[in-house]
Amino acid sequence: METYKYTKSREYFNRALKVIPAGIYGHLGPAEGCFIPVAAFPFFSQKAQGAYFWDVDGNRFIDYMCAYGPNVLGYNDADVDAAALKQLEMGNCVTSPSPIMVELAELLVDTVAMADWVFFAKNGGDVTSLALMTARAATGRSKVILIKGGYHGVAPWTQKLGYPGITEADVINNIYVEWNNYNQLEAAVKENTGQIACLMATPYHHPVFEDNKLPDVGYWQKVRKLCTDQGIVLAIDDVRCGFRLDVAGSDNYFGFKADLICFCKALANGWNLSALCGIDALKEAVSSVMYTGSYWLSAMPFAAAIATLSKLKKLNGPQVMQATGKQLTAGLQKIAANYGFDLAISGVPSLFYMRIANDDSLLLHQEWVAECVKRGIFFTNHHNQFINLALTNEDIEFTHQVADEAFQAVKKRHPEVG
Amino acid sequence: METYKYTKSREYFNRALKVIPAGIYGHLGPAEGCFIPVAAFPFFSQKAQGAYFWDVDGNRFIDYMCAYGPNVLGYNDADVDAAALKQLEMGNCVTSPSPIMVELAELLVDTVAMADWVFFAKNGGDVTSLALMTARAATGRSKVILIKGGYHGVAPWTQKLGYPGITEADVINNIYVEWNNYNQLEAAVKENTGQIACLMATPYHHPVFEDNKLPDVGYWQKVRKLCTDQGIVLAIDDVRCGFRLDVAGSDNYFGFKADLICFCKALANGWNLSALCGIDALKEAVSSVMYTGSYWLSAMPFAAAIATLSKLKKLNGPQVMQATGKQLTAGLQKIAANYGFDLAISGVPSLFYMRIANDDSLLLHQEWVAECVKRGIFFTNHHNQFINLALTNEDIEFTHQVADEAFQAVKKRHPEVG
Repeated sequence: METYKYTKSREYFNRALKVIPAGIYGHLGPAEGCFIPVAAFPFFSQKAQGAYFWDVDGNRFIDYMCAYGPNVLGYNDADVDAAALKQLEMGNCVTSPSPIMVELAELLVDTVAMADWVFFAKNGGDVTSLALMTARAATGRSKVILIKGGYHGVAPWTQKLGYPGITEADVINNIYVEWNNYNQLEAAVKENTGQIACLMATPYHHPVFEDNKLPDVGYWQKVRKLCTDQGIVLAIDDVRCGFRLDVAGSDNYFGFKADLICFCKALANGWNLSALCGIDALKEAVSSVMYTGSYWLSAMPFAAAIATLSKLKKLNGPQVMQATGKQLTAGLQKIAANYGFDLAISGVPSLFYMRIANDDSLLLHQEWVAECVKRGIFFTNHHNQFINLALTNEDIEFTHQVADEAFQAVKKRHPEVG
Repeated sequence: METYKYTKSREYFNRALKVIPAGIYGHLGPAEGCFIPVAAFPFFSQKAQGAYFWDVDGNRFIDYMCAYGPNVLGYNDADVDAAALKQLEMGNCVTSPSPIMVELAELLVDTVAMADWVFFAKNGGDVTSLALMTARAATGRSKVILIKGGYHGVAPWTQKLGYPGITEADVINNIYVEWNNYNQLEAAVKENTGQIACLMATPYHHPVFEDNKLPDVGYWQKVRKLCTDQGIVLAIDDVRCGFRLDVAGSDNYFGFKADLICFCKALANGWNLSALCGIDALKEAVSSVMYTGSYWLSAMPFAAAIATLSKLKKLNGPQVMQATGKQLTAGLQKIAANYGFDLAISGVPSLFYMRIANDDSLLLHQEWVAECVKRGIFFTNHHNQFINLALTNEDIEFTHQVADEAFQAVKKRHPEVG
């Protein structure tokens, strides 16, 4: 198989570097260390449809990043886009909101097990920050317990002292504990009795650059009880996992009930929307927080979200994506084994994390991912991948075929491994 | 003239109250005190086109709030929406950005006088926060000087101690000075020599609940010099004024050059986009900040922004809107005077603030605004209004006619005034 060239991607990137910080900043660009070696990756897309995107050089990719989550039904899903466009004819960003906002809120309250109300915004980080502010407003406390290595957006409080632009005050109320370490959590709560407003965590641990970890049996149930006993608001950041585990919320999937839950990404299949859902006991608190934005009540994303959620339910989306993820990763592991590679798969199959475990430096893994990308399978190195519902059996088979070639190429360079 | 009924608006609002905090939270709803008495205002819109929206009861409004700014060319502008929809056919929220991102960045660098680079995000608050973080990254300092009564979004650092959900640490680095008070600013800088990372301000002072104030002659030039001399990053929050004063930036309008400038609202005629523009000396600093979002590089808003900026330039948008605003407000003042009312107009005409000055309690003003709204002219009480380019002479005439009726109604109830 011929490997891809990225001539035009590089031309655009050189233009971009002149007028945009880092050319492409953030997680879609090479700056965050998930495109290694960068030479293997395209930088600009020309077109996207279903499970694919085409870069500006005309190369087609089966896209296992799904815009890092938003693409859940397939790019340009006809039903979702038709709903959004129908709404556009009526209006989008208007002085008064459309009633479709109420319809979506009602649908979410019906769909998400813990939800008594919904607050809409734009970024995942808008609603993680609102969750924290709501917990503080409700409890009159300031501190928040977070999981080491977790990600809740880019607001200063989510970052670390020493990161550019972050001050001591930004993170002074943060307390970090290890994932799945209930005793450490309990000790942190005890040390700060009556001071913890909020425990914020993802439903399972999906950091970058390391294996993802599911909750231990009984972990969430113990955490839930501790929070209830201590008057701590339990906020789940479901921005990344939301609607890929369970349309009723990832807390429901793991058998507990959050007080607040944050959605974004898969909520509207790429249309710009996030949402905080909460329990009635926190409705007054969230209403008291001064929180608003120029586009937060725009109607097109509401229409898109109704279409997305309806289709996800109709298609049993989370179950289907988990089955697809299992089929894909089981095949990849088998092919890897043929070459003596141990491909470790972790997390939930609909957004699995993978790593060639023969080499802890991850260099071997990077090499293999690069060989896949150059042949039309878009993975990133050190972030979980994402499954979408537009993937076909043929796509999975093609992925396996490319993965085989890629393992072969790596094996050739590293005959000593495995 | 029959005044409007809002039966369906209330029905939807009652439904909304069950599933959405405050029913309609934030500036588009009655919670923030700009809809007084609330009975005079519609809550939900069914349709919007050009300078109008229709509420769910079928009432038409000439809309002087323009979704609080985004509507600058007219709702559902054919050119802007066609550009966005053409881009949708190619792709919107994809794993790799579209080259149209680069084209928009180049256009902004060409258009905005001070801009050497552009960083795109979603909320106005995303870029005001980024401006502050960039200033901190560049200077290694923590403090920020803000203008009393200014608004820079809803991130915790923009709020006040005592507001629900806000902690002391959130605002500990904020220093407040009065607008147009250069001596106070200079003293604050002196007291904190070497500690101020950033001065953030709007290009002129447009608080709610009080007359808006332009910069005194020479104010910005002195401020600019002080910032340069003291190594303070001068960040202009042009979220509200941007592209209604000058397509080259409101700093350009007032004859100075900002180091950072924040755009949102009018940038893409309601399509979801914000942007931070900056000077080359801050490009490395902004690149170093960890800052990204799920939808920040989506392509449709980029296409919409190119179409919006191109049309604003072609139509001399800011000049035309200022002329329209002058025509409107001059007429309103004249009509007010006929009834003995002194209608004080402040700010820049394209986003003028108004207040019936006969009554400092503002109750009279609220009454008059309510009478206008109930007759199809959508003003709010205590926030600046916004002009858009779809307004016709007939719309202005109709507004004057309604304003006359409204003054008459108020005069009838308060014959003693004026």
